[in-house]
Amino acid sequence: MKRIIVVNGPNLNLLGKREPGIYGNQTFDEVFSQLQQTFSDTCRLEYYQSNVEGELINKLHETGFSYDGIVLNAGGYTHTSVALADAVAAISVPVVEVHISHIFSRETFRHVSLLSPHCKAMISGMGMKGYEFAINYLLGLAG
Amino acid sequence: MKRIIVVNGPNLNLLGKREPGIYGNQTFDEVFSQLQQTFSDTCRLEYYQSNVEGELINKLHETGFSYDGIVLNAGGYTHTSVALADAVAAISVPVVEVHISHIFSRETFRHVSLLSPHCKAMISGMGMKGYEFAINYLLGLAG
Amino acid sequence: MKRIIVVNGPNLNLLGKREPGIYGNQTFDEVFSQLQQTFSDTCRLEYYQSNVEGELINKLHETGFSYDGIVLNAGGYTHTSVALADAVAAISVPVVEVHISHIFSRETFRHVSLLSPHCKAMISGMGMKGYEFAINYLLGLAG
Amino acid sequence: MKRIIVVNGPNLNLLGKREPGIYGNQTFDEVFSQLQQTFSDTCRLEYYQSNVEGELINKLHETGFSYDGIVLNAGGYTHTSVALADAVAAISVPVVEVHISHIFSRETFRHVSLLSPHCKAMISGMGMKGYEFAINYLLGLAG
Amino acid sequence: MKRIIVVNGPNLNLLGKREPGIYGNQTFDEVFSQLQQTFSDTCRLEYYQSNVEGELINKLHETGFSYDGIVLNAGGYTHTSVALADAVAAISVPVVEVHISHIFSRETFRHVSLLSPHCKAMISGMGMKGYEFAINYLLGLAG
Amino acid sequence: MKRIIVVNGPNLNLLGKREPGIYGNQTFDEVFSQLQQTFSDTCRLEYYQSNVEGELINKLHETGFSYDGIVLNAGGYTHTSVALADAVAAISVPVVEVHISHIFSRETFRHVSLLSPHCKAMISGMGMKGYEFAINYLLGLAG
Amino acid sequence: MKRIIVVNGPNLNLLGKREPGIYGNQTFDEVFSQLQQTFSDTCRLEYYQSNVEGELINKLHETGFSYDGIVLNAGGYTHTSVALADAVAAISVPVVEVHISHIFSRETFRHVSLLSPHCKAMISGMGMKGYEFAINYLLGLAG
Amino acid sequence: MKRIIVVNGPNLNLLGKREPGIYGNQTFDEVFSQLQQTFSDTCRLEYYQSNVEGELINKLHETGFSYDGIVLNAGGYTHTSVALADAVAAISVPVVEVHISHIFSRETFRHVSLLSPHCKAMISGMGMKGYEFAINYLLGLAG
Amino acid sequence: MKRIIVVNGPNLNLLGKREPGIYGNQTFDEVFSQLQQTFSDTCRLEYYQSNVEGELINKLHETGFSYDGIVLNAGGYTHTSVALADAVAAISVPVVEVHISHIFSRETFRHVSLLSPHCKAMISGMGMKGYEFAINYLLGLAG
Amino acid sequence: MKRIIVVNGPNLNLLGKREPGIYGNQTFDEVFSQLQQTFSDTCRLEYYQSNVEGELINKLHETGFSYDGIVLNAGGYTHTSVALADAVAAISVPVVEVHISHIFSRETFRHVSLLSPHCKAMISGMGMKGYEFAINYLLGLAG
Amino acid sequence: MKRIIVVNGPNLNLLGKREPGIYGNQTFDEVFSQLQQTFSDTCRLEYYQSNVEGELINKLHETGFSYDGIVLNAGGYTHTSVALADAVAAISVPVVEVHISHIFSRETFRHVSLLSPHCKAMISGMGMKGYEFAINYLLGLAG
Amino acid sequence: MKRIIVVNGPNLNLLGKREPGIYGNQTFDEVFSQLQQTFSDTCRLEYYQSNVEGELINKLHETGFSYDGIVLNAGGYTHTSVALADAVAAISVPVVEVHISHIFSRETFRHVSLLSPHCKAMISGMGMKGYEFAINYLLGLAG
Repeated sequence: MKRIIVVNGPNLNLLGKREPGIYGNQTFDEVFSQLQQTFSDTCRLEYYQSNVEGELINKLHETGFSYDGIVLNAGGYTHTSVALADAVAAISVPVVEVHISHIFSRETFRHVSLLSPHCKAMISGMGMKGYEFAINYLLGLAG
Repeated sequence: MKRIIVVNGPNLNLLGKREPGIYGNQTFDEVFSQLQQTFSDTCRLEYYQSNVEGELINKLHETGFSYDGIVLNAGGYTHTSVALADAVAAISVPVVEVHISHIFSRETFRHVSLLSPHCKAMISGMGMKGYEFAINYLLGLAG
Repeated sequence: MKRIIVVNGPNLNLLGKREPGIYGNQTFDEVFSQLQQTFSDTCRLEYYQSNVEGELINKLHETGFSYDGIVLNAGGYTHTSVALADAVAAISVPVVEVHISHIFSRETFRHVSLLSPHCKAMISGMGMKGYEFAINYLLGLAG
Repeated sequence: MKRIIVVNGPNLNLLGKREPGIYGNQTFDEVFSQLQQTFSDTCRLEYYQSNVEGELINKLHETGFSYDGIVLNAGGYTHTSVALADAVAAISVPVVEVHISHIFSRETFRHVSLLSPHCKAMISGMGMKGYEFAINYLLGLAG
Repeated sequence: MKRIIVVNGPNLNLLGKREPGIYGNQTFDEVFSQLQQTFSDTCRLEYYQSNVEGELINKLHETGFSYDGIVLNAGGYTHTSVALADAVAAISVPVVEVHISHIFSRETFRHVSLLSPHCKAMISGMGMKGYEFAINYLLGLAG
Repeated sequence: MKRIIVVNGPNLNLLGKREPGIYGNQTFDEVFSQLQQTFSDTCRLEYYQSNVEGELINKLHETGFSYDGIVLNAGGYTHTSVALADAVAAISVPVVEVHISHIFSRETFRHVSLLSPHCKAMISGMGMKGYEFAINYLLGLAG
Repeated sequence: MKRIIVVNGPNLNLLGKREPGIYGNQTFDEVFSQLQQTFSDTCRLEYYQSNVEGELINKLHETGFSYDGIVLNAGGYTHTSVALADAVAAISVPVVEVHISHIFSRETFRHVSLLSPHCKAMISGMGMKGYEFAINYLLGLAG
Repeated sequence: MKRIIVVNGPNLNLLGKREPGIYGNQTFDEVFSQLQQTFSDTCRLEYYQSNVEGELINKLHETGFSYDGIVLNAGGYTHTSVALADAVAAISVPVVEVHISHIFSRETFRHVSLLSPHCKAMISGMGMKGYEFAINYLLGLAG
Repeated sequence: MKRIIVVNGPNLNLLGKREPGIYGNQTFDEVFSQLQQTFSDTCRLEYYQSNVEGELINKLHETGFSYDGIVLNAGGYTHTSVALADAVAAISVPVVEVHISHIFSRETFRHVSLLSPHCKAMISGMGMKGYEFAINYLLGLAG
Repeated sequence: MKRIIVVNGPNLNLLGKREPGIYGNQTFDEVFSQLQQTFSDTCRLEYYQSNVEGELINKLHETGFSYDGIVLNAGGYTHTSVALADAVAAISVPVVEVHISHIFSRETFRHVSLLSPHCKAMISGMGMKGYEFAINYLLGLAG
Repeated sequence: MKRIIVVNGPNLNLLGKREPGIYGNQTFDEVFSQLQQTFSDTCRLEYYQSNVEGELINKLHETGFSYDGIVLNAGGYTHTSVALADAVAAISVPVVEVHISHIFSRETFRHVSLLSPHCKAMISGMGMKGYEFAINYLLGLAG
Repeated sequence: MKRIIVVNGPNLNLLGKREPGIYGNQTFDEVFSQLQQTFSDTCRLEYYQSNVEGELINKLHETGFSYDGIVLNAGGYTHTSVALADAVAAISVPVVEVHISHIFSRETFRHVSLLSPHCKAMISGMGMKGYEFAINYLLGLAG
């Protein structure tokens, strides 16, 4: 059975609590339960969240040579972290970038993703649906 | 039954023929038949393609006040057309932006989309799968 | 009797329908009827609208060597079209640029007009009144 | 009866004397007499000119809460004065920006107006006619 | 007894009248009376306001070699005046920059202060409290 | 016998009429007759002109997989059209870019050609001679 | 009784040891004792320092929905961390930004604070006095 | 006998008092007496200083159509004042720009002079000698 | 005996595993053993690696006031971390910057090192040899 | 009989030896012999090459007032030499710029030619054919 | 007796021949004879000109530690040569920069002098008079 | 026996004489004698210095196809010379770039090396030690 991990970066632990007008009312735990249910037949889903840039890098190193796919929402580090981008480039597992809000209709500094050149694809602005489509796409690649 | 239209811009008529390393071997007609089959129960799908910027604007005007969703791949106009962006802003039907290749891992001038601020969401780099997810997402909105 | 043409560019066919908070509730047909009435004694007024950049160029070529003035609202092409600017430069009839909304209090990319260096004058932000003043001014020049 | 004031900034006291190729041969006193005659039935027109930025601000404060409109040609301060722009923003009377020459076909630094975001509208390049149209427009607003 | 002067620049004479959402309802005269009372035991407070850049420079020259401190809110000149910055650099009395609103959460052009490199410190966004803290700080320096 | 097409973009239909100081007095029909005569023994020459960006793309698609060479003078679209550049990149026939005037001694915005990275070569500033040399060069390639 | 926390970022643990010409000779522990004494009657003061960006974010999440105010000196992260700025935006407790040295008279890259748009106010260059004024201000807000 | 005026801008009234390391110990009155003596046979020298931008403009207007030359040291307004530059352009008397310190070896913002394009020449960094050479040069022109 | 520490930043724990075309096949443990052997007579070598920016800062604080030298390869943080640069500036032990690959022949964003202004020297592109030379150089300084 | 000189700049002496994938296998001596043969009836051809910027300037001075044309391939100096550009502007003989490779499809810094504004025309990317066409064009001018 | 050398850079050997509208009709030999005559009592004047950047550097090295002053007109190298600027910085003799035309009213790229930060002063736009004043100034320094 | 050449560019002939605070007191002849002694067993070392850009190119051409390594310190040409960079790219012998001072802690314009993309490696800021390490490294490559 395939293994896919969802990695969420800084401030995404506040989902459901932080700026609901932008990010919605659901906590990510609720979202993740639904995702596990949706994909219960096709893959083993894991979830990791950290606000520490280096811990996100550690997690990518740990899973990035053996899993079947990584869904990465790096939050604010998306726009500033060369170190995280280097980690995505260094691993062999395909990574899909997801953003809950539509980063391209927000502040200009959110229009640049340092991670994108090393990711397979990006989904932006589809809320929690973005995670589902990303997993779906990675399963297709791994198939 | 819901109505959704896929609008493709310049050079996308060459799919299957143009730079297959980037865009794949399928023609869009083949892709569209599969999409129609996938969504045959849930929506009436239409398809339009033009290389002329103004004709794309005309089509958005024509469908943008009555359909349930528009999937827009504006090709090269994505990065240069204020007029097309104004058209997306002017209509009331939700628009999702799709790019077959991952525009953010290509030349820098492709990293800027003038359309994004007026679209609901964007999918980039998922090949033909991007169209399917976009329709899926629009049906969810319209639901 | 003098001949003046009003040339409107992309999305201006939606006037009265598109973003009324910015552009008002009147259709341009209603506006144009009033303009014709106002100037019925002094000039023959014509009207042309297209969403296609090249057709606007064609119209400028067609009228730009024989009419007495052109009122041009090129919409989104104002900010991006070197080709249209070249057309304005190539013709001999004086052109006045009109913008319904005040482009200089909107997004930064609307603050640059490629057409301006080749136009006689510009009116921005006076709504439909701008067309009337522009015709008035052109009649003064031609007088 | 309505009250409108025309406020001219630096170097506009030299009209008729300075670079006639760009600004014409009339002094502003002559122009102003004609304007007063034109609008003698509809409004009380006043005129103020200063080369001192702070005195222009003083005049805007003095008239900007009680008059029916202000026609402002801030000359060179148009492109550099945040303080004047703040004054326009601070007052409640509508302001229309006028430029005698067409600032958008001159040097690049004249293409940026710090005042525009706080003005109702702008007329550029119509010579002395611009003042007349601006007053006309303000009377329409105040009507 | 120590002498400190508060110098306010353009448009600050409108306090209490101008954009109360940003600047509050108090006039500066009211604020200044309270400040005088607060510091009645420790220093002689003076107040000067002008909308004229050069008069602000004159005042800095006049007080800048003999007073114990200057609290300077240069309004819009903060962002544009090399001449005023040169004046601050030329005098020997310490200057503290104060802004009533938080200039760093407003328009980008307000994020640059030409005065800052020559001031001792800056307080931004604390409303009228900023003046009090600035005087307090200057008294500490002079102590 | 070889087939080569000359494709001219916006405003080039005005040759002989438009700004003769820059572009000369000959119409392109006269030029083209001479070119046909010059190359009558070695290739079949065709000519196409349009002011519509999308129609130029259509023509490139139509000829770009079967002809022996394309001479492209895209006029103002040279500097702004990603869509046209994509079309040049998408076809397999070699393209040579020609400019009648010397674009590098004119306005700065004419110094950037979006098409160049996908063209074999460029000739700028040689007037009508540029077309002849370009055809000559393409025949050499195709030889 | 009110609760306020002082959060210091990277390298501020070196205070008293690092570059005393810029930052002074006191350790922050000494400063904090004095602050606690000063405000012993009005609020419960806490102190946190970390060199790890993500731990600063964690601390903001932990205190940012229940305390009465946060005084934040984010050191070098001030100028680079979108993630920290997002954390400040996400919480509901008011945050005041403090800088010991005057960042606006140092290197240019220190003149930009990513945090400022989400903070209530900023004090820069007042040394340890800045912390005292910030707490004072927050108590006023909370009052 | 010829008439030449020396016009000094903001902060130059502090000469001899302000930053003597950069500007020297002499007051300008002393300098001016020496200049008058040096040129007592060849021209009538006048001197004007103001810290107010608009008053400098007034003085240029007053002398700029009848004198034989103007020596202008506009201090900080050199780098920011379009209005002053317009005044220099508007008058017919030749203007030479003088800077006491070498502005091109100081801060970058002092390397740009808005006045230069309208002045005959510039002398920078020669201290008080610069005024003497400038007068000498203007007398040669007027000769 | 002297003490020198080698500090490696993010992703350098993957050496030997990550992109061997750029970084070679050796793990850093193998490299470090060889370094220890080479310098066994002259200094005590230590090694530290972390992916967490703040932990690197902690290590610099810990060793930066007592060791004889620090060899720092900060990986991706080199180009983005003001906090790390501040740490290098704050300590008194000399730091030499090392990059295994030649960062100046890679992507443009790798051409800027925020650390360099505070380091003694830099070696780029010499693979593992760079560490040896850096230690050699630091021993010379400390000698 | 007419006289034309081909002037080649730095590194062009390596032709046939340097990067043959970009510049081809022929030495320029071989190319030049063919050119002399081709034009043996119509002009006297000379050739000069130097790697020294100033010697190229000397040669332009020497030939630039008496020959009938200059073909200039200034290699790397094309993009950096104001001095060479000044030399081209200073002479009266027409100059055509030639580049063997297509500089506009290479690195961005090669897209800017300082020489172009002073040259009659440019040919880029046509290999050795470019020299032939350039001579041909110059003979036409001189004819 | 003092020794001063005038060093002229590229294209200045063409004076009297090159663009007389900008540079005048005199050759520099004529100018230099007049200068020698003027200063025959006070200093030994020498003259050197080269079009080769490195030879100018050689001459600065040769004279830069023993002469009393250098008048340098580096022509086009003024705007591009770090090497020449380094030479000016490396020598101990004072250097005055002279430009015959007014470089600040010409093309923008001429507004930047890399040499200025290392020169004592600059004279621009005074024609041949500039050399005389520069020598005069240097004699004053050396006095 | 291997052959390596050290090539020094402009102003490096002044070593020991020029700015000793930055470059030290040794002449390069002394340094070179020591280098020859150090490497007397392993390679034949040569030395070349010129202030002329083109002569440096000549030397690279002469040695760049037969030697075992080149150590290049191009001084000020490092930052400006495309021609020299092209020469490094054109030759086949490996080149190591050396800078005596730490160019990345000096002026910003020294932070860009046009040569780096074509060099194997760079050492900056290690004084004369940098040459020794560079030779050492090249011998390792050639081994």
